[in-house]
Amino acid sequence: MKVVVIGGGTGTYAVLSGLKKFPDVELTAIVTMMDSGGSSGRLRDEFGHLPPGDVRKCLVALSNEDLILRRLFNFRFEENCSLNGHSFGNLFLTALTEITGDTAKAIEEASKILAIKGRVLPVTLTNTTLCAKLTDGSVIRGETNIDVRKEKTEAMIDSVYLDPQALVFPLVVTALKEADLIVIGPGDLYSSIIPNLLVKGVPEAVKVSKAKKVYVVNLMTKHGESDGFGASDFIKEVLKYLGPGTKIDAAIVNKGKVAPEQMQDYEKEKAFPVKYDFLECQKLVGRVIWCPLAFSGKLYRHDPEKLARTILGI
Amino acid sequence: MKVVVIGGGTGTYAVLSGLKKFPDVELTAIVTMMDSGGSSGRLRDEFGHLPPGDVRKCLVALSNEDLILRRLFNFRFEENCSLNGHSFGNLFLTALTEITGDTAKAIEEASKILAIKGRVLPVTLTNTTLCAKLTDGSVIRGETNIDVRKEKTEAMIDSVYLDPQALVFPLVVTALKEADLIVIGPGDLYSSIIPNLLVKGVPEAVKVSKAKKVYVVNLMTKHGESDGFGASDFIKEVLKYLGPGTKIDAAIVNKGKVAPEQMQDYEKEKAFPVKYDFLECQKLVGRVIWCPLAFSGKLYRHDPEKLARTILGI
Repeated sequence: MKVVVIGGGTGTYAVLSGLKKFPDVELTAIVTMMDSGGSSGRLRDEFGHLPPGDVRKCLVALSNEDLILRRLFNFRFEENCSLNGHSFGNLFLTALTEITGDTAKAIEEASKILAIKGRVLPVTLTNTTLCAKLTDGSVIRGETNIDVRKEKTEAMIDSVYLDPQALVFPLVVTALKEADLIVIGPGDLYSSIIPNLLVKGVPEAVKVSKAKKVYVVNLMTKHGESDGFGASDFIKEVLKYLGPGTKIDAAIVNKGKVAPEQMQDYEKEKAFPVKYDFLECQKLVGRVIWCPLAFSGKLYRHDPEKLARTILGI
Repeated sequence: MKVVVIGGGTGTYAVLSGLKKFPDVELTAIVTMMDSGGSSGRLRDEFGHLPPGDVRKCLVALSNEDLILRRLFNFRFEENCSLNGHSFGNLFLTALTEITGDTAKAIEEASKILAIKGRVLPVTLTNTTLCAKLTDGSVIRGETNIDVRKEKTEAMIDSVYLDPQALVFPLVVTALKEADLIVIGPGDLYSSIIPNLLVKGVPEAVKVSKAKKVYVVNLMTKHGESDGFGASDFIKEVLKYLGPGTKIDAAIVNKGKVAPEQMQDYEKEKAFPVKYDFLECQKLVGRVIWCPLAFSGKLYRHDPEKLARTILGI
C-alpha cells in the first residue's frame, strides 16, 4: 500500500516511525521547507540553501534504528563552541547540498546513506518565506517568528501564505496521485502542516488523487496558533487550505486524559488538550475515529504504534 | 602481505592511496595524534578530544573512491560562516567521538561507514603536546607552532619530545609485530613522522618486528625543519628516534628535477629539492633505491602509484 504523509516536525516523526514498521507499506514523506529558526534557519541564511531541519527529522524517522549514522544525524553540538549549537544532521545535509549543488539530490544521497525505508520529498524547491496575517491586521514573516511569537499580542492567526509563491516539487505530485492513502498531520498547524498546502500544485494533486485522505488532529492546542481550538477547528482550517471540493475521508482524534504531572509544562506554555467536539467534526469529514493514541511518557505525544495501527485500520 | 605505514599528513595520503590499489596488501595506517592547528586543533581545544585531522586524511585515502561520503569527508565549510572553516570529516569524527565516548571506537565506526580498505590506528590515545627544543635553547610547544613558526628565528630544531609522555595504543604494537613491511614516511619530519616514534612502545615494537623496514625520504626540504638537509640527514634523524639497534632495510629517494614553474611557490617558502648524497646514505641503511617518484602536477609530490610499486618491489 502506498502511503503519503504530509507534514514536518515531531508529529510527522511519530507517524513515520510507526508506519515504517509495517512491511507492506510503501512510505513517502512530503516535508515542509519553510523552517527559519535555530540551526536550520542559520544554515539557510548563510548558505542560501533550503532549511534542512524538517527533512533531517523525517530521514531519521525512516532510518535503520541500529545504524550509528542515525545517532549521528540526531547529534547536536553545544551552543558554546565553534559549532554554535548546530545539529550534525543539518551540517550533513548542508555539506551534501554544497557538494551536489542540488537539494533534491542531497536528500536522495542522504536517504541512501541512512538506508531509509521509504522516500523523503521536499514539498518545494522554491526558497520561500512563510507569512501570517493576524486578526489585528499585522503580518509576521518567517516560520520561527510565527512558531514562537516575539511580540506580545493576543491576536490570532487569520491566514498564512508564502512569499514568494512556491511551486510544488514534481515528484510530490506523482506521489500524491499514485497514493492509496494520504495522511495529513499531526503537527503544528500553521508552521508544519498548512505550509505544505500553500505550495502551488499540492492542494490540486490531493484533490485529484483517488487516495483515502486522513487527517490526524493534534493532541494539544498551541498558544498563538490554535488557542481554544476544538478538533473541528483544526479540521476546518485544513479543509480551508485544501480548497473547495476536497474531502477528508477520516479524522483521527485522541481519546484520553493528560495526567496532572504531564500538564505542568504545557500549562506554562498555555497549551491544553484539544477538545473533541463530536457533532461539529461529524459535519466536516466522512468519519471520525476517536480512540486512545497518546504515549504515556513525560510529554503527551502520539504513540507511533497506536497511531500507525489506527491509520492503517481505515 | 601485511604492510604498516607510519605517518600522517599528505605524504602518508600518497602512500596509502597507492598501496590500497594492490589487492594482496593488507594495510594498516599508524597515525600521529598531535595535530594542534586549524579545524582539528580548535576541535581538540573545545572538546578535549584527540585531534581528528590526520586520522581523517588516512580514512579518506583508504576509502572507496566512488563513495559520496568520501567527498563529504573532504569537504570544508567556509571561514566566514557559523561553521568557522571546519572540515566536515573532522566534525564527523568529533560527533562520533562524543556519541561513542571513545576515540578508537569512533575511528572504527568511521572506517566502517567509509568502507575503507585496511585499518587506521591512532598511534596513541594520550592527549599530548609535541614540543621542539631549538638549537638556540628555546622551546616551541604545539605541533602547529613547530610546523608554521611564528617567531622569526634562524635556529634549527635540535630535538622533539612529547609532553606528557604518550603511551602506544596497544593494537599498534600488534600491527607492527605482525607486519611483513613497515613503511615510514614520507611527510613532515618533525611534525608528522617523528611524533609517532616519540610514543613509548613504538620504537620498541619496530625494533623487535621481523618486518622489512623502509623509509621514504621527502622530495623537498622544509624551512624551519629541514633546511639544507640531504637525504642522509633525514635518514639520520629517523634512525636517531628509532633508537640504537634498529636498522632501516631500505631508503627510497626520489630521482628527478623540479620544473622551474613548480619551483616558484617552493622558493617563496624556502623549500628546496632534497639532495641525494649517495655515499652518506649508503653508510646508514641496507640499501638505497634511487628512482623517479614524483608526480608531474602543479605541486611536486609523490606519485601514489610509482611510490607503491617501488615500496612493494623491495
